[in-house]
Amino acid sequence: MASKISRLVNTSSRVPLQRHLQRTSRNYRTSLSLNSSSRPAPSFPCVEAHAVRESKILQSSVGNSKKDPSTSGPEPAYSWPTPQEYKTYNHSTPFNLVYGGTLPSFDIAYEIWGTLSPSKDNVILLHTGLSASSHAASNELHPAEGWWEKFIGPGKALDTNQFFVICTNVLGGCYGSTGPSSVNPATKTHYGTDFPILSIFDMVRAQFLLLDHLGIEKLYASVGSSMGGMQSLAAGWLHPERVGKIVSISGTARTTPGSIAMRFAQRSVLMADPNWKNGFYYDGLPPHTGMKLARQIATITYRSGPEWDQRFGRKIRPQLTDGEPVQSPALCPDFLIETYLDHQGEQFCLKYDANSLIYISKAMDLFDMTETALEGLDLSPPDSASSVVSSEGSRMMTSHSKSHPPPPNPPAHLDDLAAGLRPLAHVPILILGVQSDILFPVEQQREVADALRMAGNNMVRYYELGGVWGHDTFLLDVQNVGGAIRGFLS
Amino acid sequence: MASKISRLVNTSSRVPLQRHLQRTSRNYRTSLSLNSSSRPAPSFPCVEAHAVRESKILQSSVGNSKKDPSTSGPEPAYSWPTPQEYKTYNHSTPFNLVYGGTLPSFDIAYEIWGTLSPSKDNVILLHTGLSASSHAASNELHPAEGWWEKFIGPGKALDTNQFFVICTNVLGGCYGSTGPSSVNPATKTHYGTDFPILSIFDMVRAQFLLLDHLGIEKLYASVGSSMGGMQSLAAGWLHPERVGKIVSISGTARTTPGSIAMRFAQRSVLMADPNWKNGFYYDGLPPHTGMKLARQIATITYRSGPEWDQRFGRKIRPQLTDGEPVQSPALCPDFLIETYLDHQGEQFCLKYDANSLIYISKAMDLFDMTETALEGLDLSPPDSASSVVSSEGSRMMTSHSKSHPPPPNPPAHLDDLAAGLRPLAHVPILILGVQSDILFPVEQQREVADALRMAGNNMVRYYELGGVWGHDTFLLDVQNVGGAIRGFLS
Repeated sequence: MASKISRLVNTSSRVPLQRHLQRTSRNYRTSLSLNSSSRPAPSFPCVEAHAVRESKILQSSVGNSKKDPSTSGPEPAYSWPTPQEYKTYNHSTPFNLVYGGTLPSFDIAYEIWGTLSPSKDNVILLHTGLSASSHAASNELHPAEGWWEKFIGPGKALDTNQFFVICTNVLGGCYGSTGPSSVNPATKTHYGTDFPILSIFDMVRAQFLLLDHLGIEKLYASVGSSMGGMQSLAAGWLHPERVGKIVSISGTARTTPGSIAMRFAQRSVLMADPNWKNGFYYDGLPPHTGMKLARQIATITYRSGPEWDQRFGRKIRPQLTDGEPVQSPALCPDFLIETYLDHQGEQFCLKYDANSLIYISKAMDLFDMTETALEGLDLSPPDSASSVVSSEGSRMMTSHSKSHPPPPNPPAHLDDLAAGLRPLAHVPILILGVQSDILFPVEQQREVADALRMAGNNMVRYYELGGVWGHDTFLLDVQNVGGAIRGFLS
Repeated sequence: MASKISRLVNTSSRVPLQRHLQRTSRNYRTSLSLNSSSRPAPSFPCVEAHAVRESKILQSSVGNSKKDPSTSGPEPAYSWPTPQEYKTYNHSTPFNLVYGGTLPSFDIAYEIWGTLSPSKDNVILLHTGLSASSHAASNELHPAEGWWEKFIGPGKALDTNQFFVICTNVLGGCYGSTGPSSVNPATKTHYGTDFPILSIFDMVRAQFLLLDHLGIEKLYASVGSSMGGMQSLAAGWLHPERVGKIVSISGTARTTPGSIAMRFAQRSVLMADPNWKNGFYYDGLPPHTGMKLARQIATITYRSGPEWDQRFGRKIRPQLTDGEPVQSPALCPDFLIETYLDHQGEQFCLKYDANSLIYISKAMDLFDMTETALEGLDLSPPDSASSVVSSEGSRMMTSHSKSHPPPPNPPAHLDDLAAGLRPLAHVPILILGVQSDILFPVEQQREVADALRMAGNNMVRYYELGGVWGHDTFLLDVQNVGGAIRGFLS
């Protein structure tokens, strides 16, 4: 391997000898090209990189294979959050899941910011996106920056001078909460794909068991973005009397085939990795290549073309050796957009558990708050009696809501969705969408707002943001996303 | 393997016994769920399917491994077009490529429709998308339906009562034209990744050598969609005096990072397939899994979310055994959108050469008609002397074009693109875009039209189509796409 790599580097270093020093153009120069049908055997640094990484992971995981599976994760190189960095709620009795599985017990990792008021009426439950940990912001236990650092703190969107903020790692995750990489108490080994199919509702039900444990009867607000937006709606649906306000940013109430397609592509590359081994890879090499490829696809869905036009355009990657751009195109990455995606995949592939990605992305695909879909689930009925109406009754109400008539030519499912969202009719809700989002398109945000209004909710606040950041806007646009949240919560 | 599959079928057939016969809802029923943390070892029919296919391909390719590599392709199961089904032009002298490689000789497969006029002035050169063969429509040599069957024929968009239509398999392809799967005369074995890097311009230059061979001095029109749209513009740029009219549908003059990203993801999954073997897989198992995964990603970029909303919605796949929908969610495909993507990938993975996909998709990424990029290429200058202007001159002209002022706030590269497109200033051009296209977004079609007008072209016709078919609209919308072409050509 080492000799192959040194050959690659030597090949690259030949280029400067041939370079026209006067040229500043960053285009490929045919006069410098090494490509020819008579060239030496082609080399693929991008393919070699997989092999090098695999070899490194294999070396460092040899020492792990004999360890207690409860402490040895699949990703030896990455410093995962340690149990000292978050709080843990242990639910020690069996927990039946919506799709029929049962967990004999579970843990939920959580973190807190701000001060709980004596009457416990200032609590915000913050829900995460697919792969985030409970570490939304720095705190005493874990001083490193969190994934929503700029949104949580004194005077920020979630103002810790006023609110007590709780964020959990979701059920099914791998950052302290019980998930497929956890040890099954029954078998004393990792669940793997013996883990039962999860629902977004299961994640939220587990969170409310934590709230019960903390003695918190009612949330000031349930707040979330992306998958967190789904959870936020689910929280209000399950417990309308325990949720004061709802914020759903770039989420959905009914996953569409376009979004399923993009997550299916990720699961497919992951499950096609020979190291995935039907989910039982915890004692060997994790499916790091599949994870890298899945993250590349995911990254495409998180951002937008216009942002990349501005940020990368058609710029070519610098040479490894001397910082000059490559002079001759190759089959491996040439453009900065390619090295960016490659890097995003590389960074992620050892930071998250492959099975958690599969289970949680599947839960997102399964999410559907139409009345027809909800009827099929084994959920306790919403505990506000006033919101329980017959199917017939709710349909009639939605189609006769005069203050918020349905949009012209509504799609067939909108009435069904409005009926499903009836339990949310009396909760103030902020729906925020982003026009450049291709994963949770703005049409889905409009759909949620329309359905809520058709369900009789007169307290829907709807914002639509422009900008070029796509789905990731919720992580980046502190001014507009943060401002909308602060205004709504005040 | 067989026993595993029969176990899966048995598992599925247990469901009907438990079914509530009265229910018509197509939602998952928890009461029927087989998922539980205590269930038997999970099974993955979608993963098994890969292994079954691999075993089949391996069996049928054993017989091929000893064959003459000039006749044994990598895909034994698929009936590729035979040399009797198309015509072949053989260019027997060396051909230097734009990025510096050389082919000692090459073949171009082509097909024809209609009758060549005595003065040879009724020729339409039709360019293909990435993976299409020369078989655009049925003809005497090959009576099967072609990929543009409804657009070519008497009275159709390309009216064979009037025009003589030629379509080629592109250089780099695998349907009769020379590409990576062809035999290198120097080594008597498949090129593999010894094949030189290709440019869209190389494809077009090879086509014009075919036209020279056929004694066709001037085209009535150059017509193409998707990558064919790029070729169509390139044809006019290389030979403005030999191209009467240009049609570019859902193409681009400058590939953007968003499109590169989507093709990069496809190349990445392909090159990560262990069977790819740096491109030298022709004597063994082809990278069929990588091809399948790549095609799944490609399919997402070819269609659009709104079409899938209408076509699939959230419908669940039928059971294999009895045509009823699945009753319990699983990690393998559940939704119809998933089985559709799976099927698309499966269908394609043995029909096209993996290296052709890599080389041609790379050529698309490299395509850039800005003046700065074109300067860097070893292209013969456009052979119309009047269109050759200095960089300074062309820039001044574009920024002073009074009849077509540049759009407000043009991006930085638009002036550069207008300068690059100057040779096309006097060719009538139809640019057609589709609003739901995410691979070649409509903004890129507007950009081409704007740049052409800024370059002084007063004969740009620009259409923008709605509809839900996304990039594939050019294959499907006979009425609007066909109508626009017919009107423009008449």
